[in-house]
Amino acid sequence: MTPRLLHLKQNVLEKNDRLANGLRLRFRQAGVLVLNLVSSPGTGKTALLESTLARMRARGLRVAALVGDLATENDARRLARSGAPVRQIVTDGICHLEAEMIETHLAASRWPLAELDFLFIENVGNLVCPSGYDLGEDLRVVLLSVTEGEDKPVKYPSLFNTADVAVLTKIDLAEAVDFDRAAAYANLQAVRPGLRVFETSAKTGQGLEAWLAFLLEARTQRLAETS
Amino acid sequence: MTPRLLHLKQNVLEKNDRLANGLRLRFRQAGVLVLNLVSSPGTGKTALLESTLARMRARGLRVAALVGDLATENDARRLARSGAPVRQIVTDGICHLEAEMIETHLAASRWPLAELDFLFIENVGNLVCPSGYDLGEDLRVVLLSVTEGEDKPVKYPSLFNTADVAVLTKIDLAEAVDFDRAAAYANLQAVRPGLRVFETSAKTGQGLEAWLAFLLEARTQRLAETS
Repeated sequence: MTPRLLHLKQNVLEKNDRLANGLRLRFRQAGVLVLNLVSSPGTGKTALLESTLARMRARGLRVAALVGDLATENDARRLARSGAPVRQIVTDGICHLEAEMIETHLAASRWPLAELDFLFIENVGNLVCPSGYDLGEDLRVVLLSVTEGEDKPVKYPSLFNTADVAVLTKIDLAEAVDFDRAAAYANLQAVRPGLRVFETSAKTGQGLEAWLAFLLEARTQRLAETS
Repeated sequence: MTPRLLHLKQNVLEKNDRLANGLRLRFRQAGVLVLNLVSSPGTGKTALLESTLARMRARGLRVAALVGDLATENDARRLARSGAPVRQIVTDGICHLEAEMIETHLAASRWPLAELDFLFIENVGNLVCPSGYDLGEDLRVVLLSVTEGEDKPVKYPSLFNTADVAVLTKIDLAEAVDFDRAAAYANLQAVRPGLRVFETSAKTGQGLEAWLAFLLEARTQRLAETS
């Protein structure tokens, strides 16, 4: 990258950080726990979110989702089936979400944040671009499917390094793809020591209750911290 | 993107196009067919390449590979097992390869291009960043695994739209993931009408001979055109 391009990119990131900090303050005041889901395309962000929204709604929790994609509104349509309010952010070729997009779409949605328990942000499928863009989230969740290869954390360190928690998806396929669990965990820990890992399958439901319990506990903790 | 950033990006792309055209000329003069493999992380570019290099070498073809990654030299080590000359390009956080990197690494490799039949370039795993960067290749090959979801072509249209041929990978898992072949083909054709599609499994070997035959035929055609 040329020095001029680098300088401009730094300005963009600084502006994004300012907006993200403003969002984070609003989210905390409203008492909503915000998650930013990042992963490669096809890892299963939408499938995990579909199950999570449905299970949360079944428990009477108030949830909403913002879904980023380069093109198409497919994901929003899929997620809307859960009954939760969902809004698609079409980025028109930009390979990540930015705090400004979140601000704009929250304003347009008119969702009263204080009436939400959880807000999920599904980022654009990309293991590189989203790393530098804070969206004001409480937790950044990186997903990795067992079909992608155990080496992804060390090959895309910046994204895994900025994650607060990891979810291994499509765990029902582990055997079919000879998934090397030990290698995957070692690579995750090498890039982000102490990273908490959940194993899930949106297809069979495996691990979803533990994942849900973690989210509920995270919200309880956050509320205790800010009250 | 701000107008200034957009303008700088256009300059970068124009410079890349000039270098790529120079590379293309050199490749044609040398009689080497050059392929640029692009896909999401974990789709199986390295696995396909491993099988392709081994099978080509078994037939006495002269092949080499340049392999791009943000970090690590894992892929080059894997591919070197085929016995083919392989060189890793570590991009240090940049999410695509650029013509200048190809030029630099070809110079450093000292490979006599005229003594190669095929040069494979494995791009950084990303469904967005590589789209705009011509590397002087003859064919851009986009890979899509059956585990990623049939909707990827319409969600990442720019990359699929610039591809000359598509390879569906991990076809041995099609049944386990309820792969919807008709939907995948419809989406590929919607984004890139007439796109030729190969179905392969590096694990079982399925489809690899047809893929190889296509590559050999493409080289024969190219040589006929330029002679």
